Amino acid sequence: MGPSGIVTLITDFGLQDPYVGQLKGALLSRWPGVNIVDITHGIDSQDIRSGALALLTSFSHFPERTVHLVVVDPGVGTSRRILTAAGDAHFFVVPDNGLLSPLIEEGRITEIRRVVESTPAASATFHGRDIMAPVAADIASGKSFAATGIPLTAGDCTLLDLFPVAGQEDRITGEIIRIDHFGNIRTSIRQAHILQRKWNALELCAQIRSQWINGLTRTYAEREVGELCLLVDSDGFLELAVNQGSAATLLNAGVGEQVIVYKKPPEAPP
Amino acid sequence: MGPSGIVTLITDFGLQDPYVGQLKGALLSRWPGVNIVDITHGIDSQDIRSGALALLTSFSHFPERTVHLVVVDPGVGTSRRILTAAGDAHFFVVPDNGLLSPLIEEGRITEIRRVVESTPAASATFHGRDIMAPVAADIASGKSFAATGIPLTAGDCTLLDLFPVAGQEDRITGEIIRIDHFGNIRTSIRQAHILQRKWNALELCAQIRSQWINGLTRTYAEREVGELCLLVDSDGFLELAVNQGSAATLLNAGVGEQVIVYKKPPEAPP
Amino acid sequence: MGPSGIVTLITDFGLQDPYVGQLKGALLSRWPGVNIVDITHGIDSQDIRSGALALLTSFSHFPERTVHLVVVDPGVGTSRRILTAAGDAHFFVVPDNGLLSPLIEEGRITEIRRVVESTPAASATFHGRDIMAPVAADIASGKSFAATGIPLTAGDCTLLDLFPVAGQEDRITGEIIRIDHFGNIRTSIRQAHILQRKWNALELCAQIRSQWINGLTRTYAEREVGELCLLVDSDGFLELAVNQGSAATLLNAGVGEQVIVYKKPPEAPP
Repeated sequence: MGPSGIVTLITDFGLQDPYVGQLKGALLSRWPGVNIVDITHGIDSQDIRSGALALLTSFSHFPERTVHLVVVDPGVGTSRRILTAAGDAHFFVVPDNGLLSPLIEEGRITEIRRVVESTPAASATFHGRDIMAPVAADIASGKSFAATGIPLTAGDCTLLDLFPVAGQEDRITGEIIRIDHFGNIRTSIRQAHILQRKWNALELCAQIRSQWINGLTRTYAEREVGELCLLVDSDGFLELAVNQGSAATLLNAGVGEQVIVYKKPPEAPP
Repeated sequence: MGPSGIVTLITDFGLQDPYVGQLKGALLSRWPGVNIVDITHGIDSQDIRSGALALLTSFSHFPERTVHLVVVDPGVGTSRRILTAAGDAHFFVVPDNGLLSPLIEEGRITEIRRVVESTPAASATFHGRDIMAPVAADIASGKSFAATGIPLTAGDCTLLDLFPVAGQEDRITGEIIRIDHFGNIRTSIRQAHILQRKWNALELCAQIRSQWINGLTRTYAEREVGELCLLVDSDGFLELAVNQGSAATLLNAGVGEQVIVYKKPPEAPP
Repeated sequence: MGPSGIVTLITDFGLQDPYVGQLKGALLSRWPGVNIVDITHGIDSQDIRSGALALLTSFSHFPERTVHLVVVDPGVGTSRRILTAAGDAHFFVVPDNGLLSPLIEEGRITEIRRVVESTPAASATFHGRDIMAPVAADIASGKSFAATGIPLTAGDCTLLDLFPVAGQEDRITGEIIRIDHFGNIRTSIRQAHILQRKWNALELCAQIRSQWINGLTRTYAEREVGELCLLVDSDGFLELAVNQGSAATLLNAGVGEQVIVYKKPPEAPP
């Protein structure tokens, strides 16, 4: 089976500067046949967690053998490694700073390589354009993955616990990992954590600060307009949302705050 | 004549989250040959009027047989229908919430179908990605439009009066429907309303709040820098603008405010 | 050698309105084979300097024979000319308002033509869509460059000193020309100015307001986290940056402010 020819992009470059354009130019200059698809360039500056989340939730929607290039790279210019990886029938090109952690932890990555930099004209501050883009274009064009670098084991890579969750018998404690454009609050707790425990979706109950939400709904529309609900979002994460409103505004909540899901409402909630 | 292979996108997803990327992945996974073109992802959350306006003013600039996918969908997860439509040699895929109203009212739509959802893996909260994108990709790839769903009449669809205008003998009353990025104020009154009445462009006169603008100019540059002018914008709507400035800032005006165009200046303006 | 088929876009349209989409529709309607690549649509309204800078620093990253369309056009609707240009194996389509100045000054442009407008249906306010896009698509499709208009000399074009620099024996005086998304401060002073003078990178010293930065570093990471550094950015301009921080915030500096680079620190800095 041939390559998809697609390179997706996730960066923290924003869209005001010409950096995304330069990255695309570098891809096209290396291989004019590349089909470049923006996932997002709106990751907060150097926010590895959001970059990793965007990658984890997006890559599998693309055709097999797509190359996913993620440039959120606070360590550019240091000796941090540049990685290529393969797994789940997709390819990845990233700086070694934790961006691949969730994929590695989920056992989706089968092969990792360290890019050996051989670009004499590489700038010291824009490795996305000067080193990673050419490698991504090469893989997309069907060149050998093995030729991208020297094999590494997952244990040699930077691993971060980006979506922390702690489970007890009657509860799962997680945190807010992302507030989206609609004000929906995504937590580190996933549907899989609930399913594993065979908890009853109608009985369970979430706590954020002193606020309690009872029962898991399937859609926003099962609650009244303006009412808070708990549901599984389109990527399998537990989400707090408000029908036709913003949960983030209603709760005035931010990334990093604790969220607890209980098997059933505690008898005497504080 | 074959399909154009193009799918355009208008959404309220913003560009910070990976939702646009996931939508594109779903299109490419369904048909790798699709040519995806962003119109805008900056529609305000759930703002059907702005979504409908972007569609109305953009679609005809694209090659014939382009598919236009609009995902501004406050009713996702409810029983609101998903529509496919054909007309003016273009195709449309939208939730049934008024987005098609202006096209239907102008008599540009010749065929409407209701998508019969048969996607077992569809999420409850992201029908754009899970139901609409595959349908759009199918049409773009040249599959039968008739196969997209069950026929509906226009009267069965949600129709909203998104660009309200009321005419009297000597005046047309409309409202501000959009403030653009440059601060230009677009009104619901169109050039066609003036032409029908055969009013003299040099004599007519617009009123917003207590401010009067005399005469219709052809370009911003016909007025002094900083001066307010009334002109027909590049889409055929009457617009208030300021040469090298922002009319919205000058007038401190917002969407929904009344604008009146008079055949000629009233003898004693208030 | 054939055309690259690519048209890049630099505009001040923003991404909230459908104007970028309409521009793309016009390109595709003229030539369905065009490969459209966004460089940026986030140039500040009518900011010719930033548009020129984005063009200067981006075009050469693209394959040869790419067409670069820049629509930052405060004079739309006036008699300002529309130019096509060729040079450095690339093509350019721009309003004649200084956007080409840096390329002309650097001697990169070998041929300039004035577009003779023959589009009867052109709007008065959106020449990017109605006149420039068709010309750009024609060149990208391989049509004759000479057919785009009447020859002009560089001296006939609008020339602006967009990146002003004044040199003395022991110093170069420039100004801030751009603050990027990361808060990095780009100056009008280039690496070439330093190299010409054979100054010692370790000895030189920059002054902005009452702040002094000693020595040129190669990467952000050579300084402590939070510390200000002076380096050559990935496009060859002298840049003030902060390792993992924002120089613009630290210095509270804005576009237009003076920056001086000294051969070596003055004996008694003020």
